[in-house]
Amino acid sequence: METMKKIKKIGEDDPRRIVHSIKVGIALTLVSLFYYFRPLYDGFGQAGMWAILTVVVVFEYTVGATICKSLNRGGATLVAGALGVGAEYLAGLCGDKGESVVLGILVFILAAASTFTRFIPNVKKRYDYGVLIFILTFSLVAVSGSQVTEILQLAHQRLSTILIGGATCIVISISVCPVWAGRDLHNLVAENIEKLAAFLEGTWIRGIEDESSMLSSKDNKDKASYLQCHKSVLNSKATEESLANFAWWEPGHGRFRLHHPWKHYLKIGALARNVPAKWKHLVASEFQLKMQPACIKMCTETSKALKELSSAIKNMTYPLSSAEIYIQNSNAAANDLKSILETSSLPTKSDLQEIMPLLVITSLLIDIIKCVEKLSVSVDELSQRHVFGNQSRHLASNNYTYFTVEL
Amino acid sequence: METMKKIKKIGEDDPRRIVHSIKVGIALTLVSLFYYFRPLYDGFGQAGMWAILTVVVVFEYTVGATICKSLNRGGATLVAGALGVGAEYLAGLCGDKGESVVLGILVFILAAASTFTRFIPNVKKRYDYGVLIFILTFSLVAVSGSQVTEILQLAHQRLSTILIGGATCIVISISVCPVWAGRDLHNLVAENIEKLAAFLEGTWIRGIEDESSMLSSKDNKDKASYLQCHKSVLNSKATEESLANFAWWEPGHGRFRLHHPWKHYLKIGALARNVPAKWKHLVASEFQLKMQPACIKMCTETSKALKELSSAIKNMTYPLSSAEIYIQNSNAAANDLKSILETSSLPTKSDLQEIMPLLVITSLLIDIIKCVEKLSVSVDELSQRHVFGNQSRHLASNNYTYFTVEL
Repeated sequence: METMKKIKKIGEDDPRRIVHSIKVGIALTLVSLFYYFRPLYDGFGQAGMWAILTVVVVFEYTVGATICKSLNRGGATLVAGALGVGAEYLAGLCGDKGESVVLGILVFILAAASTFTRFIPNVKKRYDYGVLIFILTFSLVAVSGSQVTEILQLAHQRLSTILIGGATCIVISISVCPVWAGRDLHNLVAENIEKLAAFLEGTWIRGIEDESSMLSSKDNKDKASYLQCHKSVLNSKATEESLANFAWWEPGHGRFRLHHPWKHYLKIGALARNVPAKWKHLVASEFQLKMQPACIKMCTETSKALKELSSAIKNMTYPLSSAEIYIQNSNAAANDLKSILETSSLPTKSDLQEIMPLLVITSLLIDIIKCVEKLSVSVDELSQRHVFGNQSRHLASNNYTYFTVEL
Repeated sequence: METMKKIKKIGEDDPRRIVHSIKVGIALTLVSLFYYFRPLYDGFGQAGMWAILTVVVVFEYTVGATICKSLNRGGATLVAGALGVGAEYLAGLCGDKGESVVLGILVFILAAASTFTRFIPNVKKRYDYGVLIFILTFSLVAVSGSQVTEILQLAHQRLSTILIGGATCIVISISVCPVWAGRDLHNLVAENIEKLAAFLEGTWIRGIEDESSMLSSKDNKDKASYLQCHKSVLNSKATEESLANFAWWEPGHGRFRLHHPWKHYLKIGALARNVPAKWKHLVASEFQLKMQPACIKMCTETSKALKELSSAIKNMTYPLSSAEIYIQNSNAAANDLKSILETSSLPTKSDLQEIMPLLVITSLLIDIIKCVEKLSVSVDELSQRHVFGNQSRHLASNNYTYFTVEL
């Protein structure tokens, strides 16, 4: 029962997972039937098996990952097949006895060298699967001991079945409720910034405005869920990176063009993660202290600026003018606070103890505002890099959609 | 040239990568030769190909990952083969026309259901590859359209070739310069704590003691490399998790037993990452202020405590007594500082401005000390959980090695 509930929750959390499972089922059934019906089976021989193998291995959750694996598989098979034929030919020149020795040495060298290239970050990022298939295919071809003409025929069969398998996967992946890695990345980054805004507004301001309710269980639950959100922002680095990798392979979709600046989202994501690191102190601090109105203003305005940035990313509009105003407001509040602290009457001993947490929080809030400013600059860069290129910024009105509709 | 240098650096950074590449080459050559020589080839038929396929796909960098994939592959092939035979038998009962329909439906249902289980976190963590192979094998067997006796023969061949491939990989992986995921995890966690200690000591104390040199380029380089270290600690979460997953599959090795509490390392790693989050402020703060000796003491003692904890993990000794003393010292320094601040003569306006950064840093340092205390408790738990079990702690002397030598 417990397990069933968990499984149900996984489906409810993201119904696209159920759709993905059905898509895999459809693709596999289609390719299996193709293999099952004898006329086709006879044409392709045992190689029909490779179509099923391709579908199972290549069909991934996002469109980008599916395309990445399909192209890697196809390309690597082609290159390795050609090299394998060459190796076979070379070994054939060495006579019957030398053949196996030469082939063994070639397999060893190519396998070792290719395995090593998998440690190179750029290869690992995009072509890891391709290198694996390269080693596999080269070894199989080199070792098969067949005649070159036989190999060519086999290669033709295998490539066409891989093509059929890969094409089936890509077509189904794109045509039935596609899960675009790029769009997911886009939404994830925007949502993370929104979470930060909610976190700042929720735990912090609400906690101070309504001190008495802080201990009620419902609020503690809320607080726990805010902390959960905050943690999920911190832990999204790996997800963002893999999504950006896969997005690189995707064709234009929706409002995104082919060469959308996906890498820039990683920059924004990193800046957003920089904020929570400072935040932890706010949560850990005592809520009992009487907050200066200036402090509360800094919080609210920063939170508004974050919301503005998030919706600017989401809706692909220019964020600057409104977000900038909020940031200016919070900076003004920070300056107010500073001048209050500086001009206030000299604190007594007990005042100093009382004022200490306020000082700490003020300095943290000022740091957070700086972070948000950087974030704002980076979001602005994203919008500029995409459409206007070298045109000057002032051409853009605030609500101008900076992504043209997909051609 | 540039690329060659980069590739050379990858090898120099961790020479085990070169060894791993050679190991893969050896395993593949061995299995290829096995497939190449005809007497054996004739015995296994086309299935010999599966031994090569297994080696290429299964041989991973760490021992744990290799064992994980081998067992997943073997187990999944066995289960899927049996189910496939059952499906074939069931479909056979439905007559010639019904057969393909029933098989199609079965393939669809099993593929969709299995794909969905890959979203369950626990399945994904340990059996992701197994589920993939399960779908693959089931589809191949169900669709092959062969007689049950033929399938059984094929299954026998395929399982024995997979066994040969997997066993070759595991034996070579363990016997030639093994890369144990568990040992790597152990060292990574210890090194991260050491890095924190160096970071606190290096950037911070040295920066203050020798203000003038802060601007020299060499020191800036040092500072950059410290920051790099600090970043690598923050980003090690994903690595730690995958190492812990793979370590779960490894047999006892060196000083580690079979059921070593690998999960506990993740806890310690998370606590260690908690420290840098607070640290960022220290780095961002101005170095110009005159530091109170108490502040410097807090830094040095905390740094010593961290070093002690790191070496305790590395050498598997009980950390407590010495680390505890350092933590007590830094707590004492914190209390000193507090009482100085409280009893000092009333600050004037300008004093308040001067004292503000000191207050902020003090409060941060106190937080850091709290983090290190938690870390110390967690490291202590690790040592207790492993050997002494329910025995009382006071039995353990300071230098007692808490891991018995591998049986």
